[in-house]
Parts: sequence; structure tokens; C-alpha cells
Amino acid sequence: MTTKQLITQIRKKKSFLCIGLDVDLNKIPQHLQEEEDPIFAFNKAIIDATHHLCVAYKPNIAFYEAYGLKGWKALEKTINYINKNHPEIFTIADAKRGDIGNTSTMYAKAFLEDLTFDSVTVAPYMGKDSVEPFLAFENKHTILLALTSNQGAFDFQTKTVDGKALYKQVLETSKGWKNSENLMYVVGATKAEYFAEIRQIIPNSFLLVPGVGAQGGNLQDVCKYGMNENVGLLINSSRGIIYASNKSNFADAAAKKAKELQLQMEAILAE
Amino acid sequence: MTTKQLITQIRKKKSFLCIGLDVDLNKIPQHLQEEEDPIFAFNKAIIDATHHLCVAYKPNIAFYEAYGLKGWKALEKTINYINKNHPEIFTIADAKRGDIGNTSTMYAKAFLEDLTFDSVTVAPYMGKDSVEPFLAFENKHTILLALTSNQGAFDFQTKTVDGKALYKQVLETSKGWKNSENLMYVVGATKAEYFAEIRQIIPNSFLLVPGVGAQGGNLQDVCKYGMNENVGLLINSSRGIIYASNKSNFADAAAKKAKELQLQMEAILAE
Repeated sequence: MTTKQLITQIRKKKSFLCIGLDVDLNKIPQHLQEEEDPIFAFNKAIIDATHHLCVAYKPNIAFYEAYGLKGWKALEKTINYINKNHPEIFTIADAKRGDIGNTSTMYAKAFLEDLTFDSVTVAPYMGKDSVEPFLAFENKHTILLALTSNQGAFDFQTKTVDGKALYKQVLETSKGWKNSENLMYVVGATKAEYFAEIRQIIPNSFLLVPGVGAQGGNLQDVCKYGMNENVGLLINSSRGIIYASNKSNFADAAAKKAKELQLQMEAILAE
Repeated sequence: MTTKQLITQIRKKKSFLCIGLDVDLNKIPQHLQEEEDPIFAFNKAIIDATHHLCVAYKPNIAFYEAYGLKGWKALEKTINYINKNHPEIFTIADAKRGDIGNTSTMYAKAFLEDLTFDSVTVAPYMGKDSVEPFLAFENKHTILLALTSNQGAFDFQTKTVDGKALYKQVLETSKGWKNSENLMYVVGATKAEYFAEIRQIIPNSFLLVPGVGAQGGNLQDVCKYGMNENVGLLINSSRGIIYASNKSNFADAAAKKAKELQLQMEAILAE
């Protein structure tokens, strides 16, 4: 999917919501446990109930790998279901990968080509030649970790490197990489005051923003400082939506929570 | 496996060789392509021919994920084969994972508990709460990326943070994390001169050293500066061993290359 197509969807749906499909078998409704593939059954119900309210789905790959072969099958079925029934949805493999050149190509192939995700999250620690193999895929997007939403972000990401925070160095440096137009960035919502400075470095890039809701970030603040003329934001919510209820009405409850966020976004876009 | 057991194996086998099982279907012998599971068939032959010459095997998970379900099955069969037939071998899931707390726990569970690897490689960018979930597993090891062997290592890892290179900050900071006695570190062999300084920060930790051979690092130099009284090194070679030949004699050719390295290690240990 091209960035332009993503922007069109955002305008059409009046939403820049991304829903995280982080399925934990201990948290899904009891009655789904009897399904042949409980993870996929859960995802399918969530997707059926929310696809008109969001522009992106983001399965965190850890939750699928944790279930081994069964998890990979559920991941394949989920991405295929989205692509077949809702091809207008932007899909994100939240994998946080990164390795030396030829090995990064293997990861890129796995997520962007074989599983046909539109994008994959990538860690920057190993530098240019660990990220460029992902950037080489046309009309696909590499979402680089810049400033994450966890406490550990302060261990290294905000430390000063040559007079500038490490995450800013990551933003600056990555702009010079080959096919950098295919870059988006992860920026946690828990530090809304950082968005203004980030926009000075990367005014046009899309930002994937975790941390609204369960992790305490504020939507209005993020939009105030982080939005650009093409919106430029994908706000992710995972647990706050998909675990809104663990009863038989879980999909309706998820849709209700998604609708609340979508309406807030619609109001912000109207301003 | 405990660190003590690993050291005992190193002394017994007179080797601190780790063999990287990075199986690319385009590079393995033609006759194996007709096997039901070519990846496992290749690994089994390599393991049968080399297990007495090395103390560790390290499958890079990218090479398995790239083949989807088929790849995961081959990975499961490979780790089970090693654990059943050669339980004295230290196993490393080279996954370079790292995510926010509860998600890192899912990855840790996948590799250390379900697949029963002895260790997993982890990226440090997201800090303490992304790594500690891996460290919580008893008698398992977390191998943190410090200084990698690729060119991109110079993009961020060697940049100065508060008066010290970022990779040194990673070493220093990680020593204070809970269960840090379960930490090992990735340090690329291409920068042998750095080992002396690294040993001042972490004198006792094991280092997993890629980059000897195919990537140009020198074994003698690494040992001169990096070895400690418990050896403290695992030298990895992947392509240089497993792709020594792509003919029917590939396993013998791999064993020959492994033997060359083991003999060099035996001589170094005897000094």
C-alpha cells in the first residue's frame, strides 16, 4: 500500500486508529477456547466488528511466536483474512526485527513478501545495513523504533549523543538511508511534549504511536504536537480495545471502545 | 544449562566453537532438496558431523521464519534433535528480540521454555524493562547485543554517550539489571582492539563473537584481548563451516573446517 492510499483511507474513514491484535489465550473469552483455532476466531470477530472504525491492524508477532506452529498458522490466517476482506486496511507486523544485511533480508521477505504485510517494525541498534534491506521493498514500509513508550526508553534512547538525544540521532541518520521515503517511526504517546521537536526533524513521516490509553498517553496532546497536513499519525490501541470485555459480547465491546476513539479522531480532524 | 556446565564442556572438548545453523535453501546441496524436510536434513547431517568439535549451535531465527510454517517445523526438529542426542551442547536462538515488558515475556517463553533453547539474543534499544523479562528464566542466558560485527555498528553503537561509547553504556547499564548474572554479550570480532576495554567493564561475562572468518575477524587477536580465566568466549562461524561444500560431501567438508578452528582453539587453550 502506498502512503497516499493510507492517507485517502484516513480521510474517508475519519480515523487514524490502529488496532493491536495481541492475542493472549489467557485473556480471550472462555467460549472461544473450544474453537479449532481460538486465536484466529478471536481476531476474526474483532476485525468483523471494527474494520470500519480503523485504518490499520497491528499483530504483535511475539504473541503468535509464543504459541509456536499453532501461532504462526493463526497469524497467516489473520493476515490473509484482512487482505482478502479488507484490502484497504494497512497492516503492520510488529516484529521489532533487525540483523546483519543478508539476515534482515530474510526477515523482510518473511513479513513483507510471504505474509504480505504492508509494513514491519524494525529496531535501529545495528544501523544502516540492518535496516536498508527492509527499505528495499517497493510500496512497503519500515517502521523504525525511535522513542518507545516504556520506562526503558530512558535507559538509552533519551541519552545525549553528540549533543542530541539518541532517538533524534536515529531520526536524523535514518533520513540519509537508501529508500528512506519508505520509513515511518514508532514514537510513544507517553512523551507528547517530544512530538514538536520530532516534527522539526521529520515533518512529513508517518508516526506509529503506541501508549494511548492503557499506557497513559493523551490523544489530544499527541495530535496537537504530532499531526501534520497529511495527518501523519497512526494511533495504536491494543488491550484497551480488544480486551474491553471477556464475555460473549467481547466484539461489540471492542467496537464500542474503537468507536469512542474514532469519534475523538473525527472531531480532531474536523478542527 | 549453567555457565559452569558450559565451561566444563569447553575444557573437555578443547573448543569454544559455536556453529551457526543459518540454512538457506538456495545454498544447500541439490540432493537434499528432495528430502521431506531439506532444512532439518541439512542441519542433522551438519550436527552429526560436527557435534564433537563445537560446544554450541546457533540457528539464526530469520532463516527459519523466512520459510513460514515449514521453517518453524524445521527449527523445532533441529532443537529437539540437539537436545535429545547432544544435551551437553549450549543452544542459542539468534533472534535479536526485544519489546515492552509483557511482550518480551512472550518471546522469552517461546524460545527459552517452549523451544527449550539455553539462550536467546536480545537487542538493547528499549532498555531495562525490555530485557529483564528474558533474564528472569533460571539457568537460561540472555545474550545482549553490544558491539555487532556489521558496518552499521558505527552508526550508533560507537557514538559517544555521556563521554562513553553507546555499546559501553549498554555493558555498564546492563550490569545493574535484575538477574544480570544471566547476561552474555554479542561482541563482533572485526574490532579485536575493543576487547581489552570491554573486559575492563565485564571481566567475567561470556562473549558471543561473530565475524571470525567470513566477516574477516582474527581468532588469535580476539583471544589475546578477550579471553578470561574461564575462557569466556564463544566464537561463532556460520557460512565458513556449513557451506564449505555444496556437494554430497558437504558434512565432511563442514567437519574439516570445524576441526581446523577447533585445533586452533586447542592450541590457544594450551598456552
